[in-house]
Amino acid sequence: MSDERRRLLVDETPFPEGLEERLRSQLTFLVEVDRLKTILRQSPLAAAARRENDAEHSWHLAMMVGVLAEHADEPIDVGHTVQLVLLHDLVEIYAGDTPLYDSAAGVDQAEREAAAADELFGLLPADQAERMRALWDEFEERRTPEARFAKAMDRLQPLLLNWMAKGGTWRTPGVTAEEVRTRKAVIGDASTALWEAGRFLIDEGERRGWARS
Amino acid sequence: MSDERRRLLVDETPFPEGLEERLRSQLTFLVEVDRLKTILRQSPLAAAARRENDAEHSWHLAMMVGVLAEHADEPIDVGHTVQLVLLHDLVEIYAGDTPLYDSAAGVDQAEREAAAADELFGLLPADQAERMRALWDEFEERRTPEARFAKAMDRLQPLLLNWMAKGGTWRTPGVTAEEVRTRKAVIGDASTALWEAGRFLIDEGERRGWARS
Repeated sequence: MSDERRRLLVDETPFPEGLEERLRSQLTFLVEVDRLKTILRQSPLAAAARRENDAEHSWHLAMMVGVLAEHADEPIDVGHTVQLVLLHDLVEIYAGDTPLYDSAAGVDQAEREAAAADELFGLLPADQAERMRALWDEFEERRTPEARFAKAMDRLQPLLLNWMAKGGTWRTPGVTAEEVRTRKAVIGDASTALWEAGRFLIDEGERRGWARS
Repeated sequence: MSDERRRLLVDETPFPEGLEERLRSQLTFLVEVDRLKTILRQSPLAAAARRENDAEHSWHLAMMVGVLAEHADEPIDVGHTVQLVLLHDLVEIYAGDTPLYDSAAGVDQAEREAAAADELFGLLPADQAERMRALWDEFEERRTPEARFAKAMDRLQPLLLNWMAKGGTWRTPGVTAEEVRTRKAVIGDASTALWEAGRFLIDEGERRGWARS
């Protein structure tokens, strides 16, 4: 990676002189994260014939946390879990999306994403950068009930979209229903009920030929 | 409005028999809200040459709450404020977006949106429908510090996007910088510092000819 400072969105229309420094850093970050709306995922929307982007996906996970929290096997703090899902994909702004069924891209994913986190969160005042990095690490490490539930939502949401699309990315060449079940099983680390429902949809999809046996 | 039940997204690919009833209602709602990703706003993205949709906008507001909460004049519960911004535009799924500078569309907006809320939240189990309706009412009524801060974010975010676009919807025919200031002044009901910054950007935009004097 180059030592040169990356060109930021705000460099296109710099804020005028006179904004207080801390607020300027915060607004610079908040403009930069607009890029999340341009990172495309593999999942097809249920409501339109196009792929979903990371900002839409993150919003959808946050809605799911609010509605489905009661199904968590361990009690979770809803507000904290929402924080985790809102920021879990921010690193993809600089590291890109790594498709779930693309094993090659997964190899250096952790390293690329950690560098992206340093750079992106580093736009914020130090105390907020640290807090956001801690939340992202918590999501990645899955050691808390909140992080496990957040991850379960991250796996369940595209499962719902694939169901709606009668297959969606389950039809990726080389992917089988068994691999889908393996990749989705982390839902069960957070919620027995939701994993039961998820597996039920995958099994039914397989029966209908939407995922290869 | 017709008495017939509206066709839902989930009717395209109904869930199989055997899903537990409460979870089925929750998943039906969570699929239906995918439509928020197709409701276009007037604001241009900072990161791409297209308009923003409501799901992206809602996600962006939630990020802003997390980063800017310290600027609230009254202490706010961040998690609660995030809940408000995440769902504040859901009613537009059935009622459509009402542009800020379109006074005619604003006339029956409240009525259309209340009917939309009944219908959309009614897909959820009764206890959750009631809770979501209460959150939406709270946002609309702006009687709590959290609702006022949520509304401030709803006004500040497009202001930032318009700044980045060197005018954006400030250039709407008939709109003047003075009207922009009037419409954005509610930011000051929640945060003196953020309204000072917002007004500073509008004033500078006017000076540069991005908003009509």
